[in-house]
Amino acid sequence: MPSKRPKTKRLVILGSTGSIGQQTLDVVRALPERFQVLGLAAGRNVALLQEQAREFKPRLVWSEDELARSTLERATRPMARWTPLAEQAAHADADLVVVGTVGRTGLGPTLAALRAGKAVAIANKEVLVMAGAVVGKAAKEGRGELLPVDSEHSAIWQCLWGEERNAIARIFLTASGGAFRDYTPERLAGVTAEEALHHPTWQMGRKITVDSATLLNKGFEAIETRWLFDVPLERIEIVMHRESVIHSMVEFADSSVKAQLGEPDMRLPIQVALCYPDRAERAAARAFDPVSIGTLHFEPPDFRRFPALALALQAGKRGGTFPAVLAAADEVAVHHFLAGRLRFPDIAGLLEECLSAHDGGAETDLEAILEADAWARAYADDWVKARV
Amino acid sequence: MPSKRPKTKRLVILGSTGSIGQQTLDVVRALPERFQVLGLAAGRNVALLQEQAREFKPRLVWSEDELARSTLERATRPMARWTPLAEQAAHADADLVVVGTVGRTGLGPTLAALRAGKAVAIANKEVLVMAGAVVGKAAKEGRGELLPVDSEHSAIWQCLWGEERNAIARIFLTASGGAFRDYTPERLAGVTAEEALHHPTWQMGRKITVDSATLLNKGFEAIETRWLFDVPLERIEIVMHRESVIHSMVEFADSSVKAQLGEPDMRLPIQVALCYPDRAERAAARAFDPVSIGTLHFEPPDFRRFPALALALQAGKRGGTFPAVLAAADEVAVHHFLAGRLRFPDIAGLLEECLSAHDGGAETDLEAILEADAWARAYADDWVKARV
Repeated sequence: MPSKRPKTKRLVILGSTGSIGQQTLDVVRALPERFQVLGLAAGRNVALLQEQAREFKPRLVWSEDELARSTLERATRPMARWTPLAEQAAHADADLVVVGTVGRTGLGPTLAALRAGKAVAIANKEVLVMAGAVVGKAAKEGRGELLPVDSEHSAIWQCLWGEERNAIARIFLTASGGAFRDYTPERLAGVTAEEALHHPTWQMGRKITVDSATLLNKGFEAIETRWLFDVPLERIEIVMHRESVIHSMVEFADSSVKAQLGEPDMRLPIQVALCYPDRAERAAARAFDPVSIGTLHFEPPDFRRFPALALALQAGKRGGTFPAVLAAADEVAVHHFLAGRLRFPDIAGLLEECLSAHDGGAETDLEAILEADAWARAYADDWVKARV
Repeated sequence: MPSKRPKTKRLVILGSTGSIGQQTLDVVRALPERFQVLGLAAGRNVALLQEQAREFKPRLVWSEDELARSTLERATRPMARWTPLAEQAAHADADLVVVGTVGRTGLGPTLAALRAGKAVAIANKEVLVMAGAVVGKAAKEGRGELLPVDSEHSAIWQCLWGEERNAIARIFLTASGGAFRDYTPERLAGVTAEEALHHPTWQMGRKITVDSATLLNKGFEAIETRWLFDVPLERIEIVMHRESVIHSMVEFADSSVKAQLGEPDMRLPIQVALCYPDRAERAAARAFDPVSIGTLHFEPPDFRRFPALALALQAGKRGGTFPAVLAAADEVAVHHFLAGRLRFPDIAGLLEECLSAHDGGAETDLEAILEADAWARAYADDWVKARV
């Protein structure tokens, strides 16, 4: 507990009805003196958004469902004003913007917030995967600050507190292995969407749970790590760690290694980002008990069974618009897999073909990135249509 | 690698021919631009001290063997001056004092260095065990700084970089378990000194290797932790971790846990203390490889087989002069065990009786501490004599 009482932070929460958004509000509920909700924005889950608006009384609201506008404004009258994401993100009164949206949605608001000099707690991984260089530039120019929310990136970040950034030798990104970590290639060929949605340790959204099953999610995280901590992909190693107790590790120049550990509960990294640079007590947390954990395992990743991980690391190393293509094609692939139109191995197959067919552009060119994104979506859709 | 070239630090190394002293000089050899040896002091290993003096050309030398004085001064002529430990420790030109002595020897020089405002890399654990409160007071008054050297304390320290000290919830002090971790009580009763000197993971001096076998060493480390990081013993937990890969862990108020890991090589924590606040490259280090490590285990400590650990934690909680009595009685007990005059379980037996017979004094009263130390030695010696 910090000795001085911390200033109340005003939060804008984009994607407030999603997994990250709801857990962010759990943290706010647990630490009511530290936070005030300035803005809430959601997709189409209007019922939940309305409930959240009643409870937290934000001054700014938004839903992608334009029809809900009047209902929402009525529910939070006289305070709430209908305010789009980017405008909320750059609002003069916002201290911290939580980007808990999915897909491309978070990119514009993230850039707006960073250019306005805000602290941005970023959980929308596609933003950094597709446009990490652009986002980094916006942060630098606007003096904004990116705070990681993902448990792995939060782990790396916490390990770096008090360290010089240029002392990093390697980063070990740990991976639970997802739903199919122990499956044979034969069995993988026949898995269903329902099976893919059973993650062994983490409770997350549907898209990311499938991405965990292909291990593509770990590839995305490697690319995000590259941008968040300015470390080339060559210095980032993936380590399979089925217990999800060690959330990641950093090796320093002198060979000392630091790790961050804890229960697999997203509310911890969310709270770390929200409270930074303080640490606040977390009453609901289970006390860490290494003895009851008993054993921790480390294994190499199996690129043969999980080719999407290798594709992601390659795309990350190639840079340019390749990661944007990867992310866009994956969104399409997972959509069709969940709808039963693609087999599990087809996800990686589609990604591979899409990356092969792509002509890369510059990583700092937002227009080229958005073009590559659109191209990849169309290519992937056609690819699926040609097969079903 | 830090961006600015660091200033050369002038070192005084007390106990230069011991295990910590020799490894400190290994670090100096590896980073010649960072360090200059100002002073060397040793016990009776004059041959090695002379060799070290020739190589490092210190301006100050000392040996407990007064007969060696002229030889030593001749060997490093015209530079070297015969200078006692406390005087070296407080020397105006010293930037950092490494206290690698054993037993009570380091106490006076440590206090002198801290009162003179020096940074003190402390590896002489009896100093903090017997007089932690006095040492802490000297550091505060003289604006000296204690830097941990022991791998466990270095781990805790590194985990605390960039953290607020008052955010510590618990400290998990890991223990390899020593030479006899898998022995039955029956087998423990008959072990020899030679067996006790085979530590499974760490290469260390004889006394500390036996203290590792009784687990008393872990109790000492808990008491040191209490003073180094101002954390009550109630918040320090011992966890058996046979791989000695995780060197210790810190749990923070928000339930986040940080750990420091690495190969069991004392030169790493020594280098960390010597280079602080920088990290320097360590060319000789093996790259960390979690996959080749494979598995990490955590178990609870077995206080029944290793009663000395429980005695140490009790003595630490009682405070006052009890830890000094514990350390002094143990020095006598280990001495007699190594000479074949005590059985292994007698070490804890002697400690228990000595602590029971002791009338405690105040922890801030150096005179009372030294008196308790002398009393315990005499008591322990008598106890042994009455039994052999």
